Amino acid sequence: MTLINQLVSGDDFTGFYLLRELEVKQTNGATPKDYFDIVLCDASGQLSAKYWDVSSADKETFFPMGLVKIQGNAHTYREKLQIKISRMRKVTEEDGVALTDFIRSAPVRPVDLVHTIKQVTASIADQEIRTIVTYCVDKVEDRLMHYPAAKTHHHAYFAGLAYHIVRMLEIGAFICKQRPFLNADLIKAGIVLHDIAKPEEMVAQLGIVSEYSLSGKLMGHISLASNWITEAAIRCDIDLESEKVLGLQHLVLSHHNLGEWGSPVQPQTAEAVALHHIDAMDAKLQMVEDALDTTPDTEQWTPFIRGLENKPIYRMKL
Amino acid sequence: MTLINQLVSGDDFTGFYLLRELEVKQTNGATPKDYFDIVLCDASGQLSAKYWDVSSADKETFFPMGLVKIQGNAHTYREKLQIKISRMRKVTEEDGVALTDFIRSAPVRPVDLVHTIKQVTASIADQEIRTIVTYCVDKVEDRLMHYPAAKTHHHAYFAGLAYHIVRMLEIGAFICKQRPFLNADLIKAGIVLHDIAKPEEMVAQLGIVSEYSLSGKLMGHISLASNWITEAAIRCDIDLESEKVLGLQHLVLSHHNLGEWGSPVQPQTAEAVALHHIDAMDAKLQMVEDALDTTPDTEQWTPFIRGLENKPIYRMKL
Amino acid sequence: MTLINQLVSGDDFTGFYLLRELEVKQTNGATPKDYFDIVLCDASGQLSAKYWDVSSADKETFFPMGLVKIQGNAHTYREKLQIKISRMRKVTEEDGVALTDFIRSAPVRPVDLVHTIKQVTASIADQEIRTIVTYCVDKVEDRLMHYPAAKTHHHAYFAGLAYHIVRMLEIGAFICKQRPFLNADLIKAGIVLHDIAKPEEMVAQLGIVSEYSLSGKLMGHISLASNWITEAAIRCDIDLESEKVLGLQHLVLSHHNLGEWGSPVQPQTAEAVALHHIDAMDAKLQMVEDALDTTPDTEQWTPFIRGLENKPIYRMKL
Amino acid sequence: MTLINQLVSGDDFTGFYLLRELEVKQTNGATPKDYFDIVLCDASGQLSAKYWDVSSADKETFFPMGLVKIQGNAHTYREKLQIKISRMRKVTEEDGVALTDFIRSAPVRPVDLVHTIKQVTASIADQEIRTIVTYCVDKVEDRLMHYPAAKTHHHAYFAGLAYHIVRMLEIGAFICKQRPFLNADLIKAGIVLHDIAKPEEMVAQLGIVSEYSLSGKLMGHISLASNWITEAAIRCDIDLESEKVLGLQHLVLSHHNLGEWGSPVQPQTAEAVALHHIDAMDAKLQMVEDALDTTPDTEQWTPFIRGLENKPIYRMKL
Amino acid sequence: MTLINQLVSGDDFTGFYLLRELEVKQTNGATPKDYFDIVLCDASGQLSAKYWDVSSADKETFFPMGLVKIQGNAHTYREKLQIKISRMRKVTEEDGVALTDFIRSAPVRPVDLVHTIKQVTASIADQEIRTIVTYCVDKVEDRLMHYPAAKTHHHAYFAGLAYHIVRMLEIGAFICKQRPFLNADLIKAGIVLHDIAKPEEMVAQLGIVSEYSLSGKLMGHISLASNWITEAAIRCDIDLESEKVLGLQHLVLSHHNLGEWGSPVQPQTAEAVALHHIDAMDAKLQMVEDALDTTPDTEQWTPFIRGLENKPIYRMKL
Amino acid sequence: MTLINQLVSGDDFTGFYLLRELEVKQTNGATPKDYFDIVLCDASGQLSAKYWDVSSADKETFFPMGLVKIQGNAHTYREKLQIKISRMRKVTEEDGVALTDFIRSAPVRPVDLVHTIKQVTASIADQEIRTIVTYCVDKVEDRLMHYPAAKTHHHAYFAGLAYHIVRMLEIGAFICKQRPFLNADLIKAGIVLHDIAKPEEMVAQLGIVSEYSLSGKLMGHISLASNWITEAAIRCDIDLESEKVLGLQHLVLSHHNLGEWGSPVQPQTAEAVALHHIDAMDAKLQMVEDALDTTPDTEQWTPFIRGLENKPIYRMKL
Repeated sequence: MTLINQLVSGDDFTGFYLLRELEVKQTNGATPKDYFDIVLCDASGQLSAKYWDVSSADKETFFPMGLVKIQGNAHTYREKLQIKISRMRKVTEEDGVALTDFIRSAPVRPVDLVHTIKQVTASIADQEIRTIVTYCVDKVEDRLMHYPAAKTHHHAYFAGLAYHIVRMLEIGAFICKQRPFLNADLIKAGIVLHDIAKPEEMVAQLGIVSEYSLSGKLMGHISLASNWITEAAIRCDIDLESEKVLGLQHLVLSHHNLGEWGSPVQPQTAEAVALHHIDAMDAKLQMVEDALDTTPDTEQWTPFIRGLENKPIYRMKL
Repeated sequence: MTLINQLVSGDDFTGFYLLRELEVKQTNGATPKDYFDIVLCDASGQLSAKYWDVSSADKETFFPMGLVKIQGNAHTYREKLQIKISRMRKVTEEDGVALTDFIRSAPVRPVDLVHTIKQVTASIADQEIRTIVTYCVDKVEDRLMHYPAAKTHHHAYFAGLAYHIVRMLEIGAFICKQRPFLNADLIKAGIVLHDIAKPEEMVAQLGIVSEYSLSGKLMGHISLASNWITEAAIRCDIDLESEKVLGLQHLVLSHHNLGEWGSPVQPQTAEAVALHHIDAMDAKLQMVEDALDTTPDTEQWTPFIRGLENKPIYRMKL
Repeated sequence: MTLINQLVSGDDFTGFYLLRELEVKQTNGATPKDYFDIVLCDASGQLSAKYWDVSSADKETFFPMGLVKIQGNAHTYREKLQIKISRMRKVTEEDGVALTDFIRSAPVRPVDLVHTIKQVTASIADQEIRTIVTYCVDKVEDRLMHYPAAKTHHHAYFAGLAYHIVRMLEIGAFICKQRPFLNADLIKAGIVLHDIAKPEEMVAQLGIVSEYSLSGKLMGHISLASNWITEAAIRCDIDLESEKVLGLQHLVLSHHNLGEWGSPVQPQTAEAVALHHIDAMDAKLQMVEDALDTTPDTEQWTPFIRGLENKPIYRMKL
Repeated sequence: MTLINQLVSGDDFTGFYLLRELEVKQTNGATPKDYFDIVLCDASGQLSAKYWDVSSADKETFFPMGLVKIQGNAHTYREKLQIKISRMRKVTEEDGVALTDFIRSAPVRPVDLVHTIKQVTASIADQEIRTIVTYCVDKVEDRLMHYPAAKTHHHAYFAGLAYHIVRMLEIGAFICKQRPFLNADLIKAGIVLHDIAKPEEMVAQLGIVSEYSLSGKLMGHISLASNWITEAAIRCDIDLESEKVLGLQHLVLSHHNLGEWGSPVQPQTAEAVALHHIDAMDAKLQMVEDALDTTPDTEQWTPFIRGLENKPIYRMKL
Repeated sequence: MTLINQLVSGDDFTGFYLLRELEVKQTNGATPKDYFDIVLCDASGQLSAKYWDVSSADKETFFPMGLVKIQGNAHTYREKLQIKISRMRKVTEEDGVALTDFIRSAPVRPVDLVHTIKQVTASIADQEIRTIVTYCVDKVEDRLMHYPAAKTHHHAYFAGLAYHIVRMLEIGAFICKQRPFLNADLIKAGIVLHDIAKPEEMVAQLGIVSEYSLSGKLMGHISLASNWITEAAIRCDIDLESEKVLGLQHLVLSHHNLGEWGSPVQPQTAEAVALHHIDAMDAKLQMVEDALDTTPDTEQWTPFIRGLENKPIYRMKL
Repeated sequence: MTLINQLVSGDDFTGFYLLRELEVKQTNGATPKDYFDIVLCDASGQLSAKYWDVSSADKETFFPMGLVKIQGNAHTYREKLQIKISRMRKVTEEDGVALTDFIRSAPVRPVDLVHTIKQVTASIADQEIRTIVTYCVDKVEDRLMHYPAAKTHHHAYFAGLAYHIVRMLEIGAFICKQRPFLNADLIKAGIVLHDIAKPEEMVAQLGIVSEYSLSGKLMGHISLASNWITEAAIRCDIDLESEKVLGLQHLVLSHHNLGEWGSPVQPQTAEAVALHHIDAMDAKLQMVEDALDTTPDTEQWTPFIRGLENKPIYRMKL
């Protein structure tokens, strides 16, 4: 079976793919006909596809996020590879293929990622801080198993959020060792909490964000997480006015650094400064790594990357 | 007794004033002497003053925010009026003067302002919204009796915050009548709640802010108020996920309009757009009115006003 | 007859509509055919439509801003409702329909709006200010009966400009009552004059701006209105150097507040500050109201609104 | 007699100078004494000076913009040269010195500069354009003989404005020759008119701007000049709507290029683009030349120059 | 033979053109067919064209930057003129047409432009400066014969870069005469060197830039030229630390004036300030002239010009 | 002997200190007297001091960067601690104190820092990259032993630059291990080279920058380092056009990330993105650590830190 990132123009092929997006469109002209404008994907990438002469039955059969078996042809259209589907059917149990094999995922198993997050949380020495972090993790534990970290910006895949947190925890552990004046409890807590409300801010399925939720739009994940800390403190009887609670609030509220990036306050504790830079380093380097991974080896340049001053990345040949 | 804004250069005068600021300084030279660098004020304005040849006893006697009787002379120094104090003593009970007569205040009695705020709160039709607003007002009711709305920006005087809220409620009532598509409950609630955490953000006495509090610096009044809404909902058993709670959160979080002005989200409900403009209109026009009031009638131009594009205001003669 | 904002996908319908835009296009392919790409509207909204297989006669018959009778079908194309026209003819006298019934209009009769503007102008106490305002209103009185206030930004419909002025006059009257230190004559004059040269800046028909005029592009409505004040003063023998004339000039020149928004000077009189905020409040809230009105009730969110930080507005359900 | 830019620390000297600024100040301490804080200048530069132990008679005798004879000593104070005046008297007729010898001036005689401006104006081929330019020049001809072009920014000296215009006319003539597609009449007119209202915008004496006028603050020189064009057209019966008038208006209104630099519209004719760049080239290069001229030869770097990205200029040694 | 800028809608025509761009596309529909989406140009302008029903042979025959003979029809498509090609063949030797007749060129012969540049270089009095400039010119002399100055911004045609340099040299000569304090050697050297690395930064053929080179993207022409100066000094044994070398480096590094425009340092010598303004004046006025030249005489407005605040230019009628 | 950061108001003390700055000033008044305005420092911090009644001999004796023995008194002046010096003499050999004991230094011995840098350089696998890095390190090896990394921004102390590089190398090593797709040679080279020209850009002594050098002002350390790479390649016969050289150039040129921060190009290789974030993390966290270290333990807040959005840092109490 041909992986999507291995198709080349001219290929006739058969294989299983995930129908990621499907729109019924009509051809132009006096007697317009329906066709499907489709995005197919597998774990290696995605391509747009056309399925012409759609029947009424087809329109009741095929929906996004379903697995299909495709017979098609790859060709270049407007400088991009595109698929013309000649035959398509839904996958049945006998085909023996699983949805999760067709989506992009973090390179570590979700269960291991969440396990690491819970382990680090459990290692927080201060009991009250640990309690608050645990409370917030519990609210989203299920969704941590699969949520991406963003719609497109970075870690935009299955369990991307948990992967982002775990990698930041690695950087955090190194930085705390290099600079012992940093409070390791606050660094751990800040990393786990900083994006903890993203599963509330975004609606996602199979690692793909379809839209922002109502509370995501009207409050944003930073204010949501800040309110969760308050909620945790009230529910667990921790003094709302204590410096611990204030320190956690500040970490979450300031982690985007600037007002125009969504932070109502700027970092004013050592750990808040560190958290912002740990977050930036992991997010930006992951953007680079993901862009290089999903760009065919034959291309020297990745596409433009919005989060990197809208520049593409060049694959150095050394 | 001469009011401060009526003193002119050359005046010898005697009177009661509030010692707003006092710093012990030393004259330059080989044998430096102590003197007091003072700011005197009364309800009409403030002036800087010098008290030379300070004794050790003086240094134990005079402290800021105390009333004093002064004999002095007004003269111009570096283009500004300044007072040279020849005699000074603390006010005693027999003098029969009250601290509150010497500070700038809102033009309406605090008790009436707070009464109006509570009355409007009670008139909110929706029971849950009313409950949350009441909970938050209760947290600061005492401080509403005297807190200013800002350190220097606008309404920076005794009960300035309550006055700001009441004037906004007047504009809000007018706008709701002019544009019935606005929800009057949300407008009322938004106005009362938008700056409700300012007394937590700032440390103030007699209408004068001395500094920002720790939580004020690390969270800011917008996030504090957002958390109070969550606290109110939890304590009063109101559904945290309801649109009502979300609507109130959004009003508070978005009322500064832009990220660089401190709002993590931008207005996305009709009432949030209205709230921002009601706030702006009241704050800016009050800056103008206060600047004109505290500028001597003989001056055509007020000082530069930071909140008004750093422009002074010209007193039109029509 | 079905109003445009009530059509749903699948509807077959017949009705009268205004042909707002019409472009002759050609289908792709070796033997291209002409078709009409059309925008139809009525007072409730607008939709794009296609008319296939256009004859030469059709091309001589149908032109924008003409009324037509349509038989058509509504269907969804690229997630938007679109109309396929099967039959179309021009409206005749017998149809008994009037152009003005098919365009979006201010909710108050133009004649009443202009009457209010003239009445308020007449109520200006100062004779010279009144003379200048009257002179400028006279220049555009006819066009005030139908001009919109902007191309798309706000009040973009029949008599939208007059409606904007009248609503601002209502707010102005309230603010002058609330804050008596404002000069009511200047507030009235500033409101009437601030956008008075918009009919010169833009070319509009039936409340729809087709383009900016040459003087609109090379001078802009602010400088045009400033020059009209000079012209009025010269023609009516009013001292060009007087503070009155200067005060009016300043109101007009500064009402956009910032240089990057087109104002060469920033507000430096109390009334100029007030005028800017009255203008902003009316324009922004009208954007919200118009966006909600023209968004189908079934949609929770309006489209993105450029003048509101490019955010959509959410229809709160309370 | 020692020129100011030739004084070095330690010099005892006697000479005639212009008293440019004088402020009566008081020494600190218990028995403060009056002294004069003075700025002395001659055509070569300026220095601050102190005159101690001022008598009442002195205070009635000495005022800014008067010539004085000084006996004094130059010394370094806070890294800057300063003068301690030991004796000072007013200049009398017998001294035979003239005010104009003591001020910085354009390097060309004002009468010649104004003559050139009038000559170029007379050479404008189009009669209506010539009439309008002449009308505006006539309004300020007297002041063109001495006004500076700005308060501090560039050409801030006697007849600096006329010098700026004349030098721009030289550049304009070259550019019109190099690029014949430019309309020479418009270039000439645009150069003469672009800053023509500066004498109305600023209050100046002897080439020194003391402040902005009321109309300067409330309208700015750009809008003032735009209104003068309208006035000229009305008074001289030229069609206000003609492209000629519009072209002149556009040149004046757009010559600062950007809204944040004070232009309500951006250049949209070839001549307007040219005018902006001719203005920029002359102003910036004159800033450089003046800064180098007024910096002692012993200094490699000029002071920071606000109009040049706040950078100092290095005197290359080649 | 009809020039491209003289074609009007409805014309049937035959002629020779340059095939500037060619893309094989497919029609929509169930049985898509190949067609060519083409850009044709001659020295007068360019137009897009369609060639339907493309054969396999056609796909092997026609490539961009080849001359073709066309039989076609001009018609309006989406408000723009477009060509439908009915017949097309490659040009043969017998046709007697030359590639260079079909491309836009500077209005002066390249050989003359390069001659002028070399002559001015030879006239630099300082031997070391002359040596460095000569070294750098030698590196690109061949490419100066045809390179454009930019991709689209300005002077985007055959020998545009050399033309830009020569015109700047004319302005530079004038400015040095008008302001003798400028060092003419540095002005000449700065003008010749400022864009000297553009042929390294961009890949161009026949005056058309197809893309930026790798070193163009990773270093930019400013840093490339700065390194060439170092290279020249090393190879020609000139002291790298001398003020001369530093002065040249500074001219090149600062000529874009601001960091956000690509200059790592801001102009800090008189000649660097002059160079920036000479560059700006030539580039901006050439944009205007080129836009007017390539806009049909019947159009009053040019298209929007990105380098001119994204404004179009109006063709004044005087 | 009392360390500077342990002095409290009222202390009479004697001790050795470094005279960091000294200015001769004069008291105000009719008979001004000379005094020294001094900055004293030791390794723990610095304070301003006054030495009254300065003799001519004193003025020939005391100069900055000399060690002195002081007898003095600490007192509070304008809310800051200040020293009044009663006796002062130069240090003699017998005092047995060394200059280097009195200056702030990196917490690691310079010789060890430089050793580490050379060791890491030697570990670069690619021979050409290693050669270039070695060449550049050799140019500044002496100065690496003592140069600070900046004037005030970060690592502004003895050997601060080498310390900055070494700490970045630690982070770099970690990141390369965490993300093997990064080229370790380029990361090492980029870290060593990124600020390698700072000793050329700034003039420093004892870890204190007094000013920027001429080449520092006219080229900046980024362009200087870029030119050194070219120089190294030429001198060591390495192909200037190779991707290796280009890769190193890009690392240096882009490491400030944005044009307004001084980088003429933005990061476009994986290693360039990494380098920017490694640099930012080390610089910002060191600013925090240094600010906390030099703020007395009794203070909860550090001073405002320009590089951290001009915010102070709060010392969390957990």
